[in-house]
Amino acid sequence: MRFEKPIPVTEIASLIDAEIKGNRNGWVKGINEIHRVEEGDIVFTDHPKYYAACIHSPASAIIINAETECPPDKTLLITEQPFEAYNQLVSHFKPFRPSLQMVSETAQVGEGTVLMPNVYLGHQVRIGRHCILYPNVTILNDCIIGDHVIIQSGTVIGSDAFYYNKKTHREIFYKKMNSCGRVVVEDYVEIGANCTIDRGVSGDTVIGAGTKIDNLVHLGHDVMIGKNCLIAAQAGIAGATVLEDEVTVWGQAGISKTLRIGKGAVINAQSGVMSSLEGNKIYFGYPAEEAREKLKQLAWIKRIPEIWDKLKARNI
Amino acid sequence: MRFEKPIPVTEIASLIDAEIKGNRNGWVKGINEIHRVEEGDIVFTDHPKYYAACIHSPASAIIINAETECPPDKTLLITEQPFEAYNQLVSHFKPFRPSLQMVSETAQVGEGTVLMPNVYLGHQVRIGRHCILYPNVTILNDCIIGDHVIIQSGTVIGSDAFYYNKKTHREIFYKKMNSCGRVVVEDYVEIGANCTIDRGVSGDTVIGAGTKIDNLVHLGHDVMIGKNCLIAAQAGIAGATVLEDEVTVWGQAGISKTLRIGKGAVINAQSGVMSSLEGNKIYFGYPAEEAREKLKQLAWIKRIPEIWDKLKARNI
Amino acid sequence: MRFEKPIPVTEIASLIDAEIKGNRNGWVKGINEIHRVEEGDIVFTDHPKYYAACIHSPASAIIINAETECPPDKTLLITEQPFEAYNQLVSHFKPFRPSLQMVSETAQVGEGTVLMPNVYLGHQVRIGRHCILYPNVTILNDCIIGDHVIIQSGTVIGSDAFYYNKKTHREIFYKKMNSCGRVVVEDYVEIGANCTIDRGVSGDTVIGAGTKIDNLVHLGHDVMIGKNCLIAAQAGIAGATVLEDEVTVWGQAGISKTLRIGKGAVINAQSGVMSSLEGNKIYFGYPAEEAREKLKQLAWIKRIPEIWDKLKARNI
Repeated sequence: MRFEKPIPVTEIASLIDAEIKGNRNGWVKGINEIHRVEEGDIVFTDHPKYYAACIHSPASAIIINAETECPPDKTLLITEQPFEAYNQLVSHFKPFRPSLQMVSETAQVGEGTVLMPNVYLGHQVRIGRHCILYPNVTILNDCIIGDHVIIQSGTVIGSDAFYYNKKTHREIFYKKMNSCGRVVVEDYVEIGANCTIDRGVSGDTVIGAGTKIDNLVHLGHDVMIGKNCLIAAQAGIAGATVLEDEVTVWGQAGISKTLRIGKGAVINAQSGVMSSLEGNKIYFGYPAEEAREKLKQLAWIKRIPEIWDKLKARNI
Repeated sequence: MRFEKPIPVTEIASLIDAEIKGNRNGWVKGINEIHRVEEGDIVFTDHPKYYAACIHSPASAIIINAETECPPDKTLLITEQPFEAYNQLVSHFKPFRPSLQMVSETAQVGEGTVLMPNVYLGHQVRIGRHCILYPNVTILNDCIIGDHVIIQSGTVIGSDAFYYNKKTHREIFYKKMNSCGRVVVEDYVEIGANCTIDRGVSGDTVIGAGTKIDNLVHLGHDVMIGKNCLIAAQAGIAGATVLEDEVTVWGQAGISKTLRIGKGAVINAQSGVMSSLEGNKIYFGYPAEEAREKLKQLAWIKRIPEIWDKLKARNI
Repeated sequence: MRFEKPIPVTEIASLIDAEIKGNRNGWVKGINEIHRVEEGDIVFTDHPKYYAACIHSPASAIIINAETECPPDKTLLITEQPFEAYNQLVSHFKPFRPSLQMVSETAQVGEGTVLMPNVYLGHQVRIGRHCILYPNVTILNDCIIGDHVIIQSGTVIGSDAFYYNKKTHREIFYKKMNSCGRVVVEDYVEIGANCTIDRGVSGDTVIGAGTKIDNLVHLGHDVMIGKNCLIAAQAGIAGATVLEDEVTVWGQAGISKTLRIGKGAVINAQSGVMSSLEGNKIYFGYPAEEAREKLKQLAWIKRIPEIWDKLKARNI
């Protein structure tokens, strides 16, 4: 999430009641997640496991729950509850502001675009030119749709990230981390019916130009889909996973979170992908492996009785 | 389903044209399903396999297609077609009464709750305080939503149970059993986009306080989800299954019907659960087993060629 | 897709700028896909692999990208880009014509049918008698719904086929093939919430009488479902697959494209069907096989350690 203008770190510290260590004269331009962070961004962490990654990232300011070593150009914002601090910043810079009209006055719609009945466009939504949005499509605040995009009925773009802070000492374990990112859909993308595309937590969920998505597909927060990908019906891709260009995902396949799938990879139907995959190969199975390996395993399973019989014949 | 007031069993018998055996002086307060039945309830069965369970349940009256032994305080309502009789009772006590307004006049909405455009609230729907219902959410008749609940766009709460009486001698095999139960969503629950939560057949589908549900999740009729559960995208839970508190179900997992998943169980992504599971363990696979067992099996499969080679080396 | 009246092949040739070989005096009545084609239909192909199937099909005219041998009563329409030609014909005979009302003036609704709020009915939609369409259902242009049909909220009928022409030399690989087929839902069908039923590319997607479909089910283009089938939640059936009568598909199962599933087959939950299946058998697994075979395999996998131990005991 970008702020409207750069903000001094001292103002951020005061908003979240944090102690400053390191650079007191810095300015920040937005909040971002650790995989995408750029200079000028704030990141946050409450776990020592991620301290080093945050401090050595390009981030300019780190909201953190302990004082640690830190390069002199960076700002540590120390507070007991970094997740609470993050939520405070989101509430301040991107307060909940539901549009109560079907098409917000601040939404922009390009020339030649057809909005069919009961399409909802939230605040600051931008739809490009020559798009078709079928009935009952929902595009929530801040999402950006390119040119020549087609979205079938019932699809939801910009639902909140499924992203919670868990503390089992609370009566309610899970506390919602407010999403302030967007969904950005590039030109010539087509999205089927009743899909759900979550917005980024603090960054963007992106669907690259020319990618085609079938019905009932789920894309989690901060997913990045490359160009010319094909994603078949009922596939699901979990938070912050990256598909490079020209990846094909067949029906009902699932890809776990924060993985990277290489250019031109093909993931066969119903596969369950639990680790990052190299490009230009065909994968299959649960857990997914190279298809030819998996097919060999299936053939071997069928030969176990033969092995058993061999042993029996020799009284082994 | 509760009746508005207790009804004498003789009136029920007359409505469904049933013969009474046993207690002729009883009163009944509602209809319920066999797993949830309480004193004062009616249950129904048309199969000897379930006769004993019904007769020895807390139910006060049993609609049944044969005369059987029965405790003296219970009422048997004997009719050739118990399913038809059930449907007759539902039609009588809970007739189909669609609200033709987007928000029924009989719906109640608590203070501080935001209904975004095109939210549908059926008759007698009650929404608590400080909730957010995103655009295009559908809440059908009689469903109850607690306080601080967030429901993302496109989600449907209170769709009918997928529950049919099958008779292959009919031209149309499947006859719909009318649903008269509700969905009850407790406080601090969050539900993602394009989910479907079916109402109970005669009891309630319940989502416990603090449970968080991702996008495109399906909960069947009479499912009971405990408190502080986490259910990731595209998971599905079939009819009348119970999740105790603090259960985690990862993406695309499926849980079969009428099972019980113990407190704190974790079901990994894409697992297929076919039997009840103990709590505080991690499960994986299809069919789901304890994850460490399943992982061992996967490792063993990869060693079959090694076994084969050993045999070959010895000419076995 | 049927034309409003028969068209001379010479007019078709002129519309798509094709060279005619064979019968110049033929007339055509519509466009159809190769599995369903009838006399009077046009089919198209751009790959030698399918030339023979097209030429020996009942089709009267074949749009093709090379001159080939052909029976004298058939017409070859030769053009470099058969897919482009197909799209041109669709644009001409079935131009994109979105209805901008929730219920098109050309939609017909039978007596006794209840349309709940915010149901969208496109042009030329026909809904039979005594149906119930729950809130937020979308039925797009030309789809036909029989009598006594119930459709739960959020379901989309008539979304476009997920069907593209791929050319990797283009910047945008995938070019949409315009769908001009319909969805035909027969009498006594029930469809759950948030399902997606794609229209046929040029033929019809058909759901046979008495079939019951649960929530979040996907049916691809040109799927044909027989009578009295049962399809449980989150199942998906890919393009042009045929289910004969009385097939049962349990939850989260997937069936690949252009397959045939025999009458009375039962496909267990989460199965992945990759080939056509005989009727009256029970299938299970990924890839799906006869359930009893698959269960034996699962049992054998658990005995691999026993085999290993036997070998070890003999120092093999």
